[in-house]
Amino acid sequence: MKSHRKELWFEVAQRRAFLNITPQVEAALRESGIREGLCLVNAMHISASIFINDDEAGLHQDFEAWLEKLAPEKPHSQYRHNGYEDNADAHLKRSIMGREVVVAVTDGKLDFGPWEQIFYGEFDGKRRKRVLVKIIGE
Amino acid sequence: MKSHRKELWFEVAQRRAFLNITPQVEAALRESGIREGLCLVNAMHISASIFINDDEAGLHQDFEAWLEKLAPEKPHSQYRHNGYEDNADAHLKRSIMGREVVVAVTDGKLDFGPWEQIFYGEFDGKRRKRVLVKIIGE
Amino acid sequence: MKSHRKELWFEVAQRRAFLNITPQVEAALRESGIREGLCLVNAMHISASIFINDDEAGLHQDFEAWLEKLAPEKPHSQYRHNGYEDNADAHLKRSIMGREVVVAVTDGKLDFGPWEQIFYGEFDGKRRKRVLVKIIGE
Repeated sequence: MKSHRKELWFEVAQRRAFLNITPQVEAALRESGIREGLCLVNAMHISASIFINDDEAGLHQDFEAWLEKLAPEKPHSQYRHNGYEDNADAHLKRSIMGREVVVAVTDGKLDFGPWEQIFYGEFDGKRRKRVLVKIIGE
Repeated sequence: MKSHRKELWFEVAQRRAFLNITPQVEAALRESGIREGLCLVNAMHISASIFINDDEAGLHQDFEAWLEKLAPEKPHSQYRHNGYEDNADAHLKRSIMGREVVVAVTDGKLDFGPWEQIFYGEFDGKRRKRVLVKIIGE
Repeated sequence: MKSHRKELWFEVAQRRAFLNITPQVEAALRESGIREGLCLVNAMHISASIFINDDEAGLHQDFEAWLEKLAPEKPHSQYRHNGYEDNADAHLKRSIMGREVVVAVTDGKLDFGPWEQIFYGEFDGKRRKRVLVKIIGE
């Protein structure tokens, strides 16, 4: 069994954004030389998500509006976590969108359906944060 | 390390439904000959889910009503993704229910608790869609 | 390839609670002797979650209030699953928080970001329930 580990770093200028990181994950897979296995991609920070969906700008605006409805950022005082911090909503939003994805590796490629793309969901940006890619297989 | 890949195809006659696909996943595991490892099951389409829960009809009606409350289908015009498409709500519902599950394989079986069953959650049906099963182990 | 399986048992005195189970998962990893691989941790019961977030009491109160808003326990009669059971809300809450996490194992350790901790989320307690840890790798 082979394994490969890579950290991806992001610094998002806004508080919230969605970044398509599929090319970076594909690059990590090529570096690994692994042809068959599983690829884990997870946010290393607890106010960010990794998820798979469609790379369509209208949908991303829908996600933003919907997450703000389900877990509004403001008023900051509505959350007990806030005080020194102001990012409780980011923890809730990330719980809906998920921490991680596991993607099959087949014949040296991410084994995706027609529209699957991997996104980094930032919910508390303006600082450097990390994503972990861990691939195991042969 | 061994690996096994299988696609499962579904065509659901309604827009939304939950299908218990545990028997198909168990069949793929038997075909693989793998005794110890991990089994990934993921929707290959971004308006469908794979999740684990109870096979109880009342609960499935509760899921349907609850997802419609959190991410209503209509009016279609409330979502920017809609226009050529009308399935933005399906992307949101799938985000709550999840894209994938990873199940332990122990002694040649899916290593489940007493009520765990694997479901395909269709949120934009009436066409053929796929689920990927990828098993790695020994 | 090596694999290791361990069940963790919990009996929570309240209906709902969050338990930091990171030390128990780390102990299972040490027992496994695995240095590189993947560690799956999943609830074996469908009214409980495993998730990764911050070990901060204010945030956990925020999770409790938020989940009660999105999927209220009462009135029990609002859910078709209830009758003989009264835990439909627990199934919904667990759907938001997730069944499982997959954590990278690197150099014999859980490969975590700075604040990541693994929690057992109990949504229908007062009885003994199980969590599965399955680790594969080398």
